[in-house]
Parts: sequence; C-alpha cells; structure tokens
Amino acid sequence: MVMGLKCSFCERKAIINMREHRLMLCEKHLIDFMRKRVEKTIIKYKLMTKNDNILVAVSGGKDSLGVWDILNALGYHTEGLYINLGIDKYSRISKEKVERFAASRGLTVHEVDIPKAIGTSTPMAAKAWKRSICSVCGMIKRYWMNRYAKENGFTVVVTGHNLDDEIATLFGNNTTWQIDYLQRQSIVLPETHKKLVKKVKPLAFITEKESAAYAIARGIDYVYEECPYAKGATSVEFKYILNLLENRFPGFKLRYYNGFLKNKKIFGDSHVKLNECQVCGFPTTLDTCNYCRLKKHISQTAKSLTI
Amino acid sequence: MVMGLKCSFCERKAIINMREHRLMLCEKHLIDFMRKRVEKTIIKYKLMTKNDNILVAVSGGKDSLGVWDILNALGYHTEGLYINLGIDKYSRISKEKVERFAASRGLTVHEVDIPKAIGTSTPMAAKAWKRSICSVCGMIKRYWMNRYAKENGFTVVVTGHNLDDEIATLFGNNTTWQIDYLQRQSIVLPETHKKLVKKVKPLAFITEKESAAYAIARGIDYVYEECPYAKGATSVEFKYILNLLENRFPGFKLRYYNGFLKNKKIFGDSHVKLNECQVCGFPTTLDTCNYCRLKKHISQTAKSLTI
Repeated sequence: MVMGLKCSFCERKAIINMREHRLMLCEKHLIDFMRKRVEKTIIKYKLMTKNDNILVAVSGGKDSLGVWDILNALGYHTEGLYINLGIDKYSRISKEKVERFAASRGLTVHEVDIPKAIGTSTPMAAKAWKRSICSVCGMIKRYWMNRYAKENGFTVVVTGHNLDDEIATLFGNNTTWQIDYLQRQSIVLPETHKKLVKKVKPLAFITEKESAAYAIARGIDYVYEECPYAKGATSVEFKYILNLLENRFPGFKLRYYNGFLKNKKIFGDSHVKLNECQVCGFPTTLDTCNYCRLKKHISQTAKSLTI
Repeated sequence: MVMGLKCSFCERKAIINMREHRLMLCEKHLIDFMRKRVEKTIIKYKLMTKNDNILVAVSGGKDSLGVWDILNALGYHTEGLYINLGIDKYSRISKEKVERFAASRGLTVHEVDIPKAIGTSTPMAAKAWKRSICSVCGMIKRYWMNRYAKENGFTVVVTGHNLDDEIATLFGNNTTWQIDYLQRQSIVLPETHKKLVKKVKPLAFITEKESAAYAIARGIDYVYEECPYAKGATSVEFKYILNLLENRFPGFKLRYYNGFLKNKKIFGDSHVKLNECQVCGFPTTLDTCNYCRLKKHISQTAKSLTI
C-alpha cells in the first residue's frame, strides 16, 4: 500500500507506485494496466493469436499464475503444465497452489512428474550427474515444456519470465560478453525445428514488483518462497544490483531491456544447428540430448548401486 | 595494510590483496607489478615509444601523478600539464601538489589557467552557459590537453583514467546502449585529424584501489578529496555498483573491460567527421567548437553585465 496516496486515474487508494511510468495505481487500474500491457506485448511481438492452443508453464509462483490469469482474462485458449521436479515440500506446495488456481477458474492443468520420468528427483539427478541443480532443473523444464507441447498439439508455450528475470539474464551475458547467448535472448523463441514449439514471454516488460502486485490484487494464492536451491544464485545477486540501479534511476530496467532489443542485431544472428536426438528425437545440438544423457546416467548409476 | 599477511613473492608484509590476480603484495612488489603492467599495456596497445614527447595531464590526484611517476621510472620523456579550472581551494591545493611532485623529481610542469583564458572560473562558466559543471569541465580539459600538446610539440597526451573510470563510462554507455559512444571508447584515441594529438590511458587495466596503493607506496602526496562538484555524479554511483560486483565476483571489472575491448568491433566503426573550428582552428564536429562558443558566450554575458 502506498500510504495515503491516490490512484492516478480514480479516487481509490493506490496499491503501487510505478515511478518508471510516473503512475500510482489502485487494484482495479493496476489490473487494467497489466492486461493492456501484456496485450500490447503480444501484438507488437506477435507472440500468439486467439487461434493458438497455448500451454502455460506454471510453477505456482506469482509470474506464471499471473500470466495465466491475464491470458485467460484476455480470452486466449490456455491450458497449464506443471512440471513436478520432486523438490520435497517445495514441489508439493507448488503443485497444490497450481491445482487450486486451475480449479477455481475451471482451467485444465497437466503434470509431468520428473521423479517418475527419470527415476529420481531433480536435486538427486543433478548430484548423480555432477552438475549444478539450477542448470539441470532448467534443462529438464525446457525439455518437457517443448516435448509436452509438441506431443499434445499445443502451438505456443508461455513462460512467466518477467522484466527482472530478463534483465538479470541479459546483465550476466552482457557483462561477460557471451555474444552467442546475447544473440539468442528474445521475447519469442521461434520454431526453428519441426519438433520445436514457439516459446514466448508475455511478461517481459512487467517488473517483479508489478507482477507481485497483480497477483495480490487478483487474490492469486501463489508460492511466496523461492526454490530452496536458488539461494545465492548469481541471478538473485544481479537482481539486487539491478534494483539498486532502478531505485536510483527510475526506468533503468525498461531502458536497458528496450535498448537491448532495439540494438540486438549488432550481436549478429544465432547459427545454432539443431539435430534430432538419436534417443528421443527432440531437438539438440548434440547427438543425444542432455535430457536423454541424464536419464541414461541415472539408470546406469541405479544399476551399479543395486548390483 | 592486509593484517598479518605476507607478500606472495617475499617475506615482507602485504599492503594490498588483489583478489582478482590472487596476489598479495608488499610495497616493493606492488611497485614492480604496477610498472610491469603499465609497460605491458603500453606495448600491447602501442601507446607510446621512448622517442615520443609525452604530455601527462595531471590533476593532482593519485592516478595522474601515479602514471607520471610510472612513466618517468620507465624512462619515457614526459612533461606535465596542469589545467587550472579555478575551482577555489580545490584547484589551489591541487596545483600545489602537482608543483611539489614535479619539483621533487626535477620534472617540468606547464599550466593553463582557465579563468585567465576564458574570463571566469569553470563553475561560473558552466552556470552562465547553462550546462552541467562536469560536462563543461570535461570539454575544457579535453580541449586544452590537445591544444597545448599540439602547440608545444608533444606527440602523445597521457591521462590517468584507471579501470574503474573506464568501466564506469562503459557501464553508462552500455546500459543505455549509446552505440556511438561505445564505438569511440578506447585505450588509444588516435590522431584522426592533423590538429589532434594521440591520447592514451596507460592505467586502463589498473583499479582505483591499486592506483591509490601505488601512490601511497611511492610516497606521492596527492589530493585525496574528490572535486567538490563531483558529488552525486552518475559515474560515482556506477563505481559503487561495480565495486559491489567486483567484491562478489573477483575479476569482474577486468573481465567486463577486456571482454568489451575484445568484442568492441561488433559496435562498428565511429564515423565522426571532424572540421576545423572557424575561430581557433582545432578539431570539432561543429562549425565553431564548444570551447570557442563558451568563450564567446562568456564575453557577451560579461559585456551585457557591465553595460
């Protein structure tokens, strides 16, 4: 609550001060603002149409439930996908929130159960494969979002990445000059392969703060906790730094991101060649995709343990 | 002083912990390290040779006196230029420090007196011209460094810009995607015009902390205070942010800067066309250079005041 201050458009109390837009908004006008902004993003970047069969990847957090709520309100045909990573209590609570959200709106949610699919939880899999949990988790999620969408006739995958997520990624790649990653960062990841479903980020111009305020204004019961394994992640530290910059220079985040999108062509085009994984057939830059490698590694480790 | 810790190369006490190089150095080895590093920069980027007539722009701060000390120790032929901006006590103290430094080493220092040259102090000039003091000060310094060098047979101008200065500038231009500024930022600004003297930054890979430690190790009596008008400057805030990043990710500054230099070509070449100022004849992108415009403005203002 912005103490004692009124909405820029009506007499109601403002619940958010958006300095970058010089706006203070009440619940109602924040909801309007967010939906309009998302719709504008969808149209400007051609993210999807009313004819698309849209799969929203939902984690149970404010962003993914929020974007699902917005797309549903805007009249898009959406279903949800919950990827259960098997992270103990965190995954159980997340799943409950997702199912309750879907039920309350008469929406369909699908589930991919990772422990069932690969034989163990994501943290255990990462440990066995000697990789960081965050990188294995990201890989598994990207794999299943695409595979589930492709196998079930969805034409677009939506993720809840917000402006803070986008610029934290941008900042990491920019300050280390990882040109190939800069080439690929986009609001729309197109279907560059027949087994790749278009992936889009309708919240790319919405800050984390705005996204949280929307979820609260809409009474969305979301998971407040960060994933227990995300503590100390580099992206969290970049977000802290980027918030300092935003507080000091209101609009910094939007200017940084918009400027990147406008100038992205200077980094050149991405020339990643995609093959079909020889095990599952889904796109990969390798012969066997990382998901199938992980799965194989786990089944071999399990065998060696039981012999 | 790094409490109780020894130099990485000898038994003496370390006075600096350079986490980015995994080195702790005593006074003697810090002095060696800095001189070698500057010499390496000079050679790698072809900044100057022993045949050059070098003009070091000195403000009285640690960086400019430090780089002069290093170049002198390395056997380069150097003289100093002090640009007296007429900033009250600050300029008076700075001038004393510069003159004392030069005298103690038997070096020659020249002076350009801005109040005499334009008829008023830099802050008053900025006020009269309705520009920020920092931008007017920067313009005047760049103008006189070049003009003084050209008119007095110097072949290279040296400035004391350190790594922190360079990446603060880079960060500002990078996060706002000012491509034309990114094109031009360089360790060597070449003579792209017959009235332009080559300008170089031998401390570009030396952090502010290292530069201060060198000045202390060498017993250089420098001006500790920042310019009174620099408070709250954006570059100061960027330096704070970049120090947070360096503390968390040792080597961040060097990686960011080196990565930029390595990838600078993606920003394209600068295509600034330089004319000769119709008043003074020195290079400018305009018909009359900003220095001559400022001078004219002040003389007109003075006239209107005295009539």
